[in-house]
Amino acid sequence: MDKNGKEQIGVSKNVEISTDKFKQILENKTEDINRLLAGFLPQEVGEQTTVISAVNYSVNAGGKRLRPIFLVGTNELCGGEGIADPLVAAFAAAIEMIHTYSLVHDDLPAMDNDKYRRGKLTTHAKYGEAMGILAGDALLNLAFEIAAGALEKEKEPERILAGAKALSILSVKSGIWGMIGGQSVDVEKTGQPFKEGTLDFIYRLKTAALLEAAVMIGGVLSGVTKGEADQLGQMGTAIGMAFQIQDDILDITGNEKVLGKPIHSDEKNHKTTYVTLHPVKKAREEVKRLTGEAIQILLQFDKKKGRDATFLIGLVDLLSERER
Amino acid sequence: MDKNGKEQIGVSKNVEISTDKFKQILENKTEDINRLLAGFLPQEVGEQTTVISAVNYSVNAGGKRLRPIFLVGTNELCGGEGIADPLVAAFAAAIEMIHTYSLVHDDLPAMDNDKYRRGKLTTHAKYGEAMGILAGDALLNLAFEIAAGALEKEKEPERILAGAKALSILSVKSGIWGMIGGQSVDVEKTGQPFKEGTLDFIYRLKTAALLEAAVMIGGVLSGVTKGEADQLGQMGTAIGMAFQIQDDILDITGNEKVLGKPIHSDEKNHKTTYVTLHPVKKAREEVKRLTGEAIQILLQFDKKKGRDATFLIGLVDLLSERER
Repeated sequence: MDKNGKEQIGVSKNVEISTDKFKQILENKTEDINRLLAGFLPQEVGEQTTVISAVNYSVNAGGKRLRPIFLVGTNELCGGEGIADPLVAAFAAAIEMIHTYSLVHDDLPAMDNDKYRRGKLTTHAKYGEAMGILAGDALLNLAFEIAAGALEKEKEPERILAGAKALSILSVKSGIWGMIGGQSVDVEKTGQPFKEGTLDFIYRLKTAALLEAAVMIGGVLSGVTKGEADQLGQMGTAIGMAFQIQDDILDITGNEKVLGKPIHSDEKNHKTTYVTLHPVKKAREEVKRLTGEAIQILLQFDKKKGRDATFLIGLVDLLSERER
Repeated sequence: MDKNGKEQIGVSKNVEISTDKFKQILENKTEDINRLLAGFLPQEVGEQTTVISAVNYSVNAGGKRLRPIFLVGTNELCGGEGIADPLVAAFAAAIEMIHTYSLVHDDLPAMDNDKYRRGKLTTHAKYGEAMGILAGDALLNLAFEIAAGALEKEKEPERILAGAKALSILSVKSGIWGMIGGQSVDVEKTGQPFKEGTLDFIYRLKTAALLEAAVMIGGVLSGVTKGEADQLGQMGTAIGMAFQIQDDILDITGNEKVLGKPIHSDEKNHKTTYVTLHPVKKAREEVKRLTGEAIQILLQFDKKKGRDATFLIGLVDLLSERER
């Protein structure tokens, strides 16, 4: 992308939109999600204000809000009402609570022992270790409070069934067969060399599973078929894997100021990553390949009557070229 | 109760059943729950076997299984099919997963730092601190996987709505307005003197909230009215408060061998409890008063056509006199 933003974005050149305009749209959508999250955060009242404050601090520490953006975007792509639908809004908030809890627990002294994230103190560094554990627990729990609360308010049988399905996807993809499973192997293998298969397993579960959940839930809440939900899941895997490999690349080639965190942290922590197993050039090719795979699926949806994948294609493109 | 077990049990003398017979019934019900839990535990397959093994170890470490027993018992009291109903079975397992996760995280070095529970190594002592955190997360997540999985299989909208209501109760009572909220204040206040109001707050949230959830969910899944669910909630509060105060009493007067853990641990940890604020005699009276309150509610349910509260009255009675 050039600096005046007049070129089309992305590796695929499938999207007829200028970089500047796309970035503005993305910024607006991120703000929508931030407002949505604020509406679901607990008020700091009662004797338990410390843990509530730690929960709110963790969520308000920022982030790209990718999972809710993908959830809402996929819902719109598939004909849903997006954020205007209370079930979609609830699941979008819920998935960000789960992502946030995973970061809070990952940062704990017994895990990655990180004191800073996005230039701010991590939750345990600010509130103490016990409160870091409890705030993470509270965020995971809050995700299900939000989702169950929205489900409970539904009246139409079909919507209720779709909500139950979405809840099941969210919980399975977050648990031992998803994110926690990947995280546990990552923790266990840190400092040890391992092979491609194990790396693939970790990335699929630790990073990709929650992105799969996001796009599948977006689809399921708009009533897609089982076949379409599976296709969306595949797209989520490709997006998640590309995202993680791009992270590995940036840990070597990134600019610390742009990135907002020190580079070479994987090497320091003796972590096996895609770029310890392969040259950076191969990693870049793999990001392109995976991005192309995701876009192919999006184009299939785009071709269907009344559907428009422009935004999601632009987002997937942008992520593959991100510098932070 | 005398040693030959021929006397009727309990403070209320409302139940026409011998102690021995009651204990046998309770043992059978506990075994039913243990079998139920075994069916919901994940198989130790895949690369993530360590975290799965830590999850299973935590659940299989034993326990009274009171929450699922109360959930199923209340469901039967209110005309439900108990454990034969897949939704009831799922929620009974789910609530025990949540109770277990809370113990795993409470035992962590940054929390109570306990190496043993029920005479066995705690999860983090056996699997390491990182795995202790992740196994706790996995158990909380598993609770919602189990509940959502059962909900998803339901066909009738009314059943799904009852399930969604149950899920909402489970999540709210486990979160910052329930168990986690109480636990966070408990952690924060440890080592500091505080007043009756704060103690009441901690006990209501930390201990009673999950018992309230158990009996309310049991009722809701059998279709009780809102008024009845609230009454059951009040009963849960009384049972939970009595249980916690009895714990405080046993920490002073208990027999370590019977109890399976050292006494005077509250004093050692500088914890304010009911018996640091009141004499043991007053604490015993409060347990009796709360037990009587719970039984009064059970008797109201018992009077309704076709309902039988014998088992639950016996259980509440037994708990008020427990020595471990």
